[in-house]
Amino acid sequence: MKDTETHIIGYENSMEGKEFFAVISPLDGQTMRFHFCNATEEEINYAAQKASIAASAYRNTKPKKKAKFLNDIAQLLEKRSEEIVTVCFLETALPEMRLQGELGRTCNQLRMFAQQIMAKNFLTEIYEEALPERVPQRPNLLRKLIGIGPVAVFGASNFPLAFSVAGGDTASALAAGCPVIVKGHPLHPKTSQLVGECIREATIKNQLPDGVFSLLHGKSNRVGQQLLLHPAIKAGAFTGSQKGGQALLQIVNQRKTPIPFFAEMGSVNPVVIMRDSLETNFAELASGILNSCTLGVGQFCTNPGLVVIEKSEVQNQFLSLIHDIVESLDSGTMLSADIANNYMDMKRKTAVQHIVKIVGKAQSKGKYAEGVPCVMACRAADLIKSPEIAEEIFGPSTMIVIAEDKNEILQVLDVIGGQLTATLFCEKENLLQHQDILDKMAEIAGRILYNSYPTGVEVGLAMQHGGPWPASSDSRFTSVGAQAIFRFLRPVVWQGF
Amino acid sequence: MKDTETHIIGYENSMEGKEFFAVISPLDGQTMRFHFCNATEEEINYAAQKASIAASAYRNTKPKKKAKFLNDIAQLLEKRSEEIVTVCFLETALPEMRLQGELGRTCNQLRMFAQQIMAKNFLTEIYEEALPERVPQRPNLLRKLIGIGPVAVFGASNFPLAFSVAGGDTASALAAGCPVIVKGHPLHPKTSQLVGECIREATIKNQLPDGVFSLLHGKSNRVGQQLLLHPAIKAGAFTGSQKGGQALLQIVNQRKTPIPFFAEMGSVNPVVIMRDSLETNFAELASGILNSCTLGVGQFCTNPGLVVIEKSEVQNQFLSLIHDIVESLDSGTMLSADIANNYMDMKRKTAVQHIVKIVGKAQSKGKYAEGVPCVMACRAADLIKSPEIAEEIFGPSTMIVIAEDKNEILQVLDVIGGQLTATLFCEKENLLQHQDILDKMAEIAGRILYNSYPTGVEVGLAMQHGGPWPASSDSRFTSVGAQAIFRFLRPVVWQGF
Repeated sequence: MKDTETHIIGYENSMEGKEFFAVISPLDGQTMRFHFCNATEEEINYAAQKASIAASAYRNTKPKKKAKFLNDIAQLLEKRSEEIVTVCFLETALPEMRLQGELGRTCNQLRMFAQQIMAKNFLTEIYEEALPERVPQRPNLLRKLIGIGPVAVFGASNFPLAFSVAGGDTASALAAGCPVIVKGHPLHPKTSQLVGECIREATIKNQLPDGVFSLLHGKSNRVGQQLLLHPAIKAGAFTGSQKGGQALLQIVNQRKTPIPFFAEMGSVNPVVIMRDSLETNFAELASGILNSCTLGVGQFCTNPGLVVIEKSEVQNQFLSLIHDIVESLDSGTMLSADIANNYMDMKRKTAVQHIVKIVGKAQSKGKYAEGVPCVMACRAADLIKSPEIAEEIFGPSTMIVIAEDKNEILQVLDVIGGQLTATLFCEKENLLQHQDILDKMAEIAGRILYNSYPTGVEVGLAMQHGGPWPASSDSRFTSVGAQAIFRFLRPVVWQGF
Repeated sequence: MKDTETHIIGYENSMEGKEFFAVISPLDGQTMRFHFCNATEEEINYAAQKASIAASAYRNTKPKKKAKFLNDIAQLLEKRSEEIVTVCFLETALPEMRLQGELGRTCNQLRMFAQQIMAKNFLTEIYEEALPERVPQRPNLLRKLIGIGPVAVFGASNFPLAFSVAGGDTASALAAGCPVIVKGHPLHPKTSQLVGECIREATIKNQLPDGVFSLLHGKSNRVGQQLLLHPAIKAGAFTGSQKGGQALLQIVNQRKTPIPFFAEMGSVNPVVIMRDSLETNFAELASGILNSCTLGVGQFCTNPGLVVIEKSEVQNQFLSLIHDIVESLDSGTMLSADIANNYMDMKRKTAVQHIVKIVGKAQSKGKYAEGVPCVMACRAADLIKSPEIAEEIFGPSTMIVIAEDKNEILQVLDVIGGQLTATLFCEKENLLQHQDILDKMAEIAGRILYNSYPTGVEVGLAMQHGGPWPASSDSRFTSVGAQAIFRFLRPVVWQGF
């Protein structure tokens, strides 16, 4: 039995295309019954036109009304949470518990933006009074932030709720007063559809313009490309791989009128463990690292993919403990067979390097779309010469890097490129000695952690999720937390009114 | 007698090149005695390396010390103001009075940034306390803004002081904690040199790292291109023509690691005059428009190049008055013979269109690098069909557009693309009727003025100088005023410290 699903274009449904696709559930390798279609060029144009027409009215919608809209979306998601979580589990193999948590986070995000756009001191207007006596006279100036216009949002595979159709990008763009067109991720289209219906329902309920929200499905790259090239689109947001983000950025660079495009592309998130910390806590660190690294089958952007330890007498004990733990771990089911194959390929490519050793790996159970935890090791001196071995492997693996001294640690941080996070473990009494490492970390990363693990990204006012290239396409912005709204706002000054 | 001048690379001078150039004074067409050289690839690399090494120490320099540095630059510029203004007049033909004013503005800008980086509530840090009892625990988070790294600044021809070596881009980048490499504009290299020496002196006096500031000369496009492609450069800022800005943006797009590049590229700055205003004030408006349009021989980015009037019984009186005034005006001397020739070509290209009429022009005196004021006119309906006639003509000319009704006014605003400014003239009691025009203006421009002229850009906390493409490359930022610093800052969060 086949169910054919539609795109959501403003208030309407549409299904004009002929290029069908369906999800193969990672749980069992069976094709799911929901069938989707690549959005056609006409459908993309239609959604963009609607968004363009809706932009002016939605930009001028009062914050209170926009806040209610966001809160209503959250409420509708909660109402349909059971159905959403059930479908999402089939599409992504992410455990229901995790998905329930992620749905909660999605709703909290929407409510946070609702709250922030109502908060007096968040989107501060600046007013400068006229100084008519000054030579030359100063006119009065009122500076406000307005929505930049329709935003194209690309759903992420690894956060089917919190970074997809009603995720952080959509919530921040809608809060900024921008219409949103989501290009749904083809690995969870039915989840996208259910979430998209909630947003549409909230749009209609609040009598917001037809075109404030659309959801286009697409497995073909063409869909996202045509969307990004449409002149009505004024900004874009993406969460995914470096390859995907870079390809889309190249498309953006071909536009006649450039637009800001924020791509969060992940990183290896170095964790540096100084000797003092290793010697005091190596057992705790071994399990902590492996726990963070295998969380969600290693499918987090902030996964610790590189653990740099300072040479120590206990390093062999540490490595042998890592070996024991990882061999005892269960394998997991990844988001799709392609992602699992890619994980295996990347792991192999790295492991065959003669400078890399396997510390340990879990047993394969021969499952479909299986992700088998694995830990490798290398010497810092080798990594510094061949930094390609530190490339991100999306999945439950990490590389232990053994550094002779601090100088090698600094050099490792120098060669691995921009990062979302960088973490330092050391004893409190020695922290001041490592200002040089912290400075280097600030130079390469957006978030620096002390004695904790990088997975788990707090959604708040202070969060920074984004870092120097290639962790993200513009280190001045964040895709998580309240400040994410500034990606989609631009200042306008009214003079002499 | 020839004087051969050097580049400033950190604390050092350098002059390795063989490709010489000299300014031909627009005052008399004579070659000036100061000779400069295109910076060589080695010199560019050397400056970039120095900036890269200086970046970390300068980023961590205390705000107080950076503020003193900026204040010292202002003081040194004032000390050498006589020499600077004299040379600058010879290089640019801008009147000494104007240059004195511009130097004052340049010093005020430096002092404003000094003040702002010391102000508690300007570069707000955000701190969120830990919530250890919450499930999951919230770690403490401290969010600060840090300098993005070395910035390449391109000096502007039309503001040889306020938007050149020590201008708004340099001041905001230095305030942000970023080393600066200026690519001096080849139309005022000696002015650049004198100003650059002041900055170097302040660097040494404040014992700031060698490499915080460099000045490279270049008439060849190669110099700017190589500078922008250098991996050590982390951001760029440019003020100039659309052609220049777009060419540099294409270079930036070729980089392996993308960087933010802010280009302010000017616009036609539409001034819309509603019937009520025209009928009450047409005489004042005619002289006001011409005054704004010919100020500084029309060489301002905010020059009103398009004046849209609503059809009225007085429109012929208005046009005939414009005719009388413009014919009585003196011609001016432009910044260079090339700029004057380009002005003449652009004017001719537009004037020969059969849909365009000449309303009036001033007499040519056959001067070198002459800019002759000129006013043209067309019907809105024609402009809507052929928007290319509304392209910016850099110089003392403007186009009067006669609109049948408000609908045509809105359509004109729709076809002319992104703008730095848009201005509305109407009587106060009718302002509320024109919300549709104001909304359209907010959509296309960064600054909206009421009953005043767009030239004269206040340097303050509220100012927005930048607008949707092609007025600038990123409408979310400004190049004038205190907020300009945010182009060169990126957030970093410290978690759990």
